[in-house]
Amino acid sequence: MFNVALFGAGRIGQIHARNAAARSDLKLKYIVDPNREAADPLAHRTGAVAVDSDAALGDASISGVIIASATNVHLDQALRAAAAGKTIFCEKPLDLDLERARNAATQLERAAMLMGFNRRFDPHFQALKTRLDEGAIGRLESLSIVSHDPAPPPIEYVRISGGLFKDMAIHDFDTARWLMGEEPEEVFTSASCLIDPAIADAGDVDTAKTILRTATGRLCVISNSRRSAYGYDQRIEAYGAAGSLRADNVMESTVSTWRERGCASDALQGFFLDRYAQAYRREMAHFAAILRDETSPAVGYKDAVAALALAEAAGLSAKLNKPVSVRSLG
Amino acid sequence: MFNVALFGAGRIGQIHARNAAARSDLKLKYIVDPNREAADPLAHRTGAVAVDSDAALGDASISGVIIASATNVHLDQALRAAAAGKTIFCEKPLDLDLERARNAATQLERAAMLMGFNRRFDPHFQALKTRLDEGAIGRLESLSIVSHDPAPPPIEYVRISGGLFKDMAIHDFDTARWLMGEEPEEVFTSASCLIDPAIADAGDVDTAKTILRTATGRLCVISNSRRSAYGYDQRIEAYGAAGSLRADNVMESTVSTWRERGCASDALQGFFLDRYAQAYRREMAHFAAILRDETSPAVGYKDAVAALALAEAAGLSAKLNKPVSVRSLG
Amino acid sequence: MFNVALFGAGRIGQIHARNAAARSDLKLKYIVDPNREAADPLAHRTGAVAVDSDAALGDASISGVIIASATNVHLDQALRAAAAGKTIFCEKPLDLDLERARNAATQLERAAMLMGFNRRFDPHFQALKTRLDEGAIGRLESLSIVSHDPAPPPIEYVRISGGLFKDMAIHDFDTARWLMGEEPEEVFTSASCLIDPAIADAGDVDTAKTILRTATGRLCVISNSRRSAYGYDQRIEAYGAAGSLRADNVMESTVSTWRERGCASDALQGFFLDRYAQAYRREMAHFAAILRDETSPAVGYKDAVAALALAEAAGLSAKLNKPVSVRSLG
Amino acid sequence: MFNVALFGAGRIGQIHARNAAARSDLKLKYIVDPNREAADPLAHRTGAVAVDSDAALGDASISGVIIASATNVHLDQALRAAAAGKTIFCEKPLDLDLERARNAATQLERAAMLMGFNRRFDPHFQALKTRLDEGAIGRLESLSIVSHDPAPPPIEYVRISGGLFKDMAIHDFDTARWLMGEEPEEVFTSASCLIDPAIADAGDVDTAKTILRTATGRLCVISNSRRSAYGYDQRIEAYGAAGSLRADNVMESTVSTWRERGCASDALQGFFLDRYAQAYRREMAHFAAILRDETSPAVGYKDAVAALALAEAAGLSAKLNKPVSVRSLG
Repeated sequence: MFNVALFGAGRIGQIHARNAAARSDLKLKYIVDPNREAADPLAHRTGAVAVDSDAALGDASISGVIIASATNVHLDQALRAAAAGKTIFCEKPLDLDLERARNAATQLERAAMLMGFNRRFDPHFQALKTRLDEGAIGRLESLSIVSHDPAPPPIEYVRISGGLFKDMAIHDFDTARWLMGEEPEEVFTSASCLIDPAIADAGDVDTAKTILRTATGRLCVISNSRRSAYGYDQRIEAYGAAGSLRADNVMESTVSTWRERGCASDALQGFFLDRYAQAYRREMAHFAAILRDETSPAVGYKDAVAALALAEAAGLSAKLNKPVSVRSLG
Repeated sequence: MFNVALFGAGRIGQIHARNAAARSDLKLKYIVDPNREAADPLAHRTGAVAVDSDAALGDASISGVIIASATNVHLDQALRAAAAGKTIFCEKPLDLDLERARNAATQLERAAMLMGFNRRFDPHFQALKTRLDEGAIGRLESLSIVSHDPAPPPIEYVRISGGLFKDMAIHDFDTARWLMGEEPEEVFTSASCLIDPAIADAGDVDTAKTILRTATGRLCVISNSRRSAYGYDQRIEAYGAAGSLRADNVMESTVSTWRERGCASDALQGFFLDRYAQAYRREMAHFAAILRDETSPAVGYKDAVAALALAEAAGLSAKLNKPVSVRSLG
Repeated sequence: MFNVALFGAGRIGQIHARNAAARSDLKLKYIVDPNREAADPLAHRTGAVAVDSDAALGDASISGVIIASATNVHLDQALRAAAAGKTIFCEKPLDLDLERARNAATQLERAAMLMGFNRRFDPHFQALKTRLDEGAIGRLESLSIVSHDPAPPPIEYVRISGGLFKDMAIHDFDTARWLMGEEPEEVFTSASCLIDPAIADAGDVDTAKTILRTATGRLCVISNSRRSAYGYDQRIEAYGAAGSLRADNVMESTVSTWRERGCASDALQGFFLDRYAQAYRREMAHFAAILRDETSPAVGYKDAVAALALAEAAGLSAKLNKPVSVRSLG
Repeated sequence: MFNVALFGAGRIGQIHARNAAARSDLKLKYIVDPNREAADPLAHRTGAVAVDSDAALGDASISGVIIASATNVHLDQALRAAAAGKTIFCEKPLDLDLERARNAATQLERAAMLMGFNRRFDPHFQALKTRLDEGAIGRLESLSIVSHDPAPPPIEYVRISGGLFKDMAIHDFDTARWLMGEEPEEVFTSASCLIDPAIADAGDVDTAKTILRTATGRLCVISNSRRSAYGYDQRIEAYGAAGSLRADNVMESTVSTWRERGCASDALQGFFLDRYAQAYRREMAHFAAILRDETSPAVGYKDAVAALALAEAAGLSAKLNKPVSVRSLG
């Protein structure tokens, strides 16, 4: 049984709190959130105690720290947790500033740190990855990732979130790295604001198509949109020398309705809290296995920096309207 | 180039006329239909001449006769065509009276006669049959046939058509025989009138579930309905020792529309004239090959009688509410 | 928090134990199984204590009893639990003897008793039921249930289980009753032994097709097989005046592999422990809600008897080769 | 009845010859091909006469000319046919040289000229276009086109064909223009040679991802590959404000095979001659309607030039590794 502390009692923090509390090998001891109106009820519901960060990090019985706070404090909290010798489970992105993130290398490369890139723990995407690694389609040549959110976040969130690339597409950059088997070296992004002019006013885009290119010429296309009227669209296609693999969307049920105009499926599984519910549970299981010293983090600090670099490059490419070399950054 | 005569200028006759006229190896010479208002324009459209049956059968240059007239004259016309030494392509059913059909054995068993069981020529069902014969699912154990019409025919047609079993389900009885690889020996049918009470008044049923059983205990379930709000439902599932085969419905296109409530396919292909358009063309190609002496009829007189016997047994079973042995008939 | 006792530490007992233990509103206090080699480790794993049935039923703090023991003791244990005033969650079937089951009416009709017909709690089948009730396809006319197990059970189990109808198809009889909205009055079954002659030697069949018929002529076809080479085949189709509903099989993942010969899906979800894992959790949630007095059992003693009567009728029909009226039984 | 002459007796010429010959409103009078070993048998099979181009163009009874010859003579033949006052059906691409193609404007803009962009006549893509125009998904925001050939052409063909962009992807550029409802103004392409180094030696690429961008920021991604182990992959996805439309691949049949490892579909419809067989027939029907003066060409000279410009821009973009403005060309 490992004691863990959770930083951040917001939406994603609540998911991790519930998943940690449900495990018999973890004891969720502390909830840390300056907003006590969020921290207290969550602590109450999960049998934890709401404390401040010093108390949590200063308690030697705490083995693991789950960082699910606002993006702008991820890196600081990770550094403090690392300094306190805790095992870290940090939500994405690590930071919005590539240089800051890179500068933490000395401290965080040595830390046991799991990055919360949930796609890597999704059973459907894992099944695709397994077949890819088994050689089901031979040598991989290219990849297509569709990642469309159901609806744009509130404009206040858009402003502070890091924008489409660092907040949302960063998942897809990580997925691309995970599946490509090679680092993307160059990024070209064409982006628009087609959904809501307020997003443009906030300095962001809502629709983007990105091409990643590796040293050997493998290509990956990512399609991002902040709005998908039919629900959360999360698909992957991989093309190889011997065939293709596809991970399709997950529907609410297998029920179809047949009426005059053909067949209607059930709806897509809602937003990320539903679609990746299993992934979040598996992430927490993986974190527990790291605490038990049975495995090392499947995705960690270096991956966080690499995905952030791709996001930075994509934003820059969209702005400059030319391909951006990842190496040239910073 | 073989000269052929078509008997019957109705809906199905027009299909066969068009398909015969489109072939370079057939010359549609005559249209025979007492209703000249149907015969004349069809003859005009296809470059044929409208004549009476004596003229058609008496013309020694006519090699083949296509019988697409009303059901009640199929058998007589087939007998006359056989007597005149013509090769015959006869629409189903051969007759509504099992005994009469059986009594024609002496004359028709020797004739070259193709029965118009269109399912045998459908590319989808043929693909299923091919895989079955190739052993894709090992030894066949049971079969499920769904055969639902979009909407009931006019009540006048219901009255004279021979009813659901001899008019409509007879296709499925033939399909079952074709795929089972063994003769069904016993038939149990439970039937209802759920769609339109006028159908019951006309002495027919509109919904039926039938179980066929062969000597070795193989089973086939047939689901029939005169009304299917989502279109013409024509499916087959075969269960074997090593797996299962399914032939699914054909949609108008591969287009799907994704909106709030999931995915909507295109509509099903309309009614039999659309769904089996390819089958009708292949039937005619097969008839041409018979005329060229390259093959013998894939489905002929004996099959016509056997399917009729199953239809008779099904009707009797539904009436008596007990299983009926096919051998016990007549 | 309600204290519950579990009877039966076998395969299904372990599922219910885990699900009960995972709930914060239930306390799994006792495991009751004469086989201490099963009871003790399960008790250990779930924080329960292994005791005998007298201890469990005699403990006034126990509110609920979960009966997951061998079929032949279900009824006795249910009667004893009812006599002790406990709320009951009893696995199917209630008993193999219809008369014995019916005779328990006085005691069990008054008891709060949930029958473990898992299909009723499956999210896919529930989604179909919801749409049916909402009128998505108008008035229901007929139903088709496919229920094929991956592989036959050990022959020793076949001998004592009650056979295909009372052990396996009883789920489908319950599903038919649940969805039909009317009681089936007549049953016709044609059954064979096509998979393994040892099953016939044990007095059972392995392949069966059943037609249920209600008073108003609604029809339901059930297809049962003890062996399905492609996995656990669990599907429902409902046909109504305005369309059709289908609940399809659940695959392991949404991944498809495209190679030379088209598209290959992932495998079907294994056997019932996987396929109905969610249903078992929801069943337990429903049991907890009954204990909290928030709801009454969605499926209870009367349903247990009615499904058993249909199973009895199906077996008799297959034996006598004629339709059997449910009312005529016993 | 309109007399037509066919230029080019190769693979695609044979398709058009057969489709023209099968129509009752067209008379295929001449086959023109310097290679008499190709021209003579095709003329024989279709009841045409093999003549030289002067004879064909000089015959005043010839209304229409079908140009299905080698790409390098398309433009010259079109110019000569236009000068002779014929109605033209010209295979794509009009020419490999953008400037030459543009220079023909004076002569060809006034001619009645149908360009053979077969995708526009495919029933599946047309169904998607119809729904798009009907507003099924609201305002279009972006598009994704997958266009992968089964296997690379012979290297000799690669050398003279104009390369992946002008020979193969030109179809997709036309499709993008057809569906986007706005002209793409900028093209970025990242291309590789991943399949066969001989293709690189011939100065071409075999794998490419292209982003097209219109003035209002609509985006289109095109995925091209010269090799797709699972067959000819031809799909379109359209994303709009209110949903998404997809046109999926066409399978040989609706048959699926269920075995241990899930469900296997039938194979994809082979290569373009099969996949677009219906489209070629509809193209010819459209050409006949143009000859009958019932309609004007759905796709003509200006479209040929515009698609060629996009192909030119894509090739240039891939070479320069930067986005290319279509206006900047030539």
